[in-house]
Amino acid sequence: MSINEISANRSFGGWHKQFTHTSSVLNCEMRFAVYLPPQMEQGKNVPVLYWLSGLTCTDENFMQKAGAHRMAAELGMMIVAPDTSPRGDDVADDEGYDLGKGAGFYVNATQEPWAKHYQMYDYVTRELPQIIEGNFSVNNKKAILGHSMGGHGALMIALRNPDMFVSASAFSPIVNPMNCPWGKKAFTAYLGSDEQEWQQYDSCFLLEQAEKQIPMLVSQGDADQFLTEQLKPETLQAVARKKNYPLILEIHQGYDHSYYFIASFIEQHLKFHAEHLA
Amino acid sequence: MSINEISANRSFGGWHKQFTHTSSVLNCEMRFAVYLPPQMEQGKNVPVLYWLSGLTCTDENFMQKAGAHRMAAELGMMIVAPDTSPRGDDVADDEGYDLGKGAGFYVNATQEPWAKHYQMYDYVTRELPQIIEGNFSVNNKKAILGHSMGGHGALMIALRNPDMFVSASAFSPIVNPMNCPWGKKAFTAYLGSDEQEWQQYDSCFLLEQAEKQIPMLVSQGDADQFLTEQLKPETLQAVARKKNYPLILEIHQGYDHSYYFIASFIEQHLKFHAEHLA
Repeated sequence: MSINEISANRSFGGWHKQFTHTSSVLNCEMRFAVYLPPQMEQGKNVPVLYWLSGLTCTDENFMQKAGAHRMAAELGMMIVAPDTSPRGDDVADDEGYDLGKGAGFYVNATQEPWAKHYQMYDYVTRELPQIIEGNFSVNNKKAILGHSMGGHGALMIALRNPDMFVSASAFSPIVNPMNCPWGKKAFTAYLGSDEQEWQQYDSCFLLEQAEKQIPMLVSQGDADQFLTEQLKPETLQAVARKKNYPLILEIHQGYDHSYYFIASFIEQHLKFHAEHLA
Repeated sequence: MSINEISANRSFGGWHKQFTHTSSVLNCEMRFAVYLPPQMEQGKNVPVLYWLSGLTCTDENFMQKAGAHRMAAELGMMIVAPDTSPRGDDVADDEGYDLGKGAGFYVNATQEPWAKHYQMYDYVTRELPQIIEGNFSVNNKKAILGHSMGGHGALMIALRNPDMFVSASAFSPIVNPMNCPWGKKAFTAYLGSDEQEWQQYDSCFLLEQAEKQIPMLVSQGDADQFLTEQLKPETLQAVARKKNYPLILEIHQGYDHSYYFIASFIEQHLKFHAEHLA
């Protein structure tokens, strides 16, 4: 699993780097970004934080806009940011911003024309961690977080893999994709119309079934334009309360869906994960 | 001087906002961005930091990528980020990224076809401060900083207006535009071929003539691809040493020309200015 370094920027004493590689899971060339904290140059094996981005994003948005490198450097965490879908001219796409390229929803598609490339669940949970562990000096501790569609991805993946991740968090996540327009559109296209097939990717459903608990933090702005139609974090909170699941939901007054919100609270999220990654 | 708010994002307890207005100096509609720290909502008049961006940038790059809001909120500073040139369909342009739109170089153009709109020196030193002081609760303390072409702008403007700004700083500035390809191209176009006309916009020349001193900080990465041909900060340092001018030049190993470099040291720059704005 060879990877090609295509860019490198010194950042907070560490490195921001981008790599390309041929993904056998997605059947295409992919790009991902990492932040390598200064501790890695000092020979230390560090824990890994996987960041999943939202609709329309690539590996770049979080790295450029979240201001996360400062705390990752201080706490000694590697950050990995994959792309949000398979890429390339022969990859199926849709005109909508919320389906196809930039909108993989972190599922394994079973339907045409998506199934050949849209296997983002396997990519994030299997192929990418293998690449990271094969190419970087990391230890075996992992946490996962994301924003919006990537918040859905982070919570859903953590709920399905509680032995893989020590903690999960999300900004403005889609917590119940089976019951919101973004989720219904994407799941119908990628998974077909049988809603039973959707449950395995729905955090509310998964949390209801969860046996093993891991700490979860969700941050949500109350001025988020998508709050009432798409996100509805109180749905997840209700399930968590019923199950006594360790979910913290924080509502922040006046904050919207943008990276300004993420930047404002990324320090809190990184410190939350650091506690569990230590 | 009315301004129209076109966006607002809560950020670190304050606000990031964008405004448009009709500039009488530039003869066009302009957009600028501000960061309003939480202290302003508490009724406090705060000092203002003017940020000038580099080639190809708008008001957005710094606000999105520098991670400056956190410290501005903590230190209680307003930040103002203007665009880097006049804008609009009837504004003269060039195919190069380093002349015309996105490349105003913070000078008052005297040559055709530029003179009608390219009056960025007057815009930044006169019209924009009047707008800020007329529309926001600020005190009379101002500092200025910038990156690359905007580093040139910040140092040059501070050297010409040492009573207006209490301090100046720059990341990777063009310190001697009269003697580098970017500066020669822009100054020839905007100011004509008489190099005497260029001196008023050249920080090395201005520092040589400076009577009043203000504290200056320059940060430069030694892996900056533009270092040896375009930037050459040691030229400014040599003049400063001769004059015993309070210029601090810091060379940072491995850092390049990107916003990852700016983000890594923006806290230091804001604290440097805070000392003098207090």
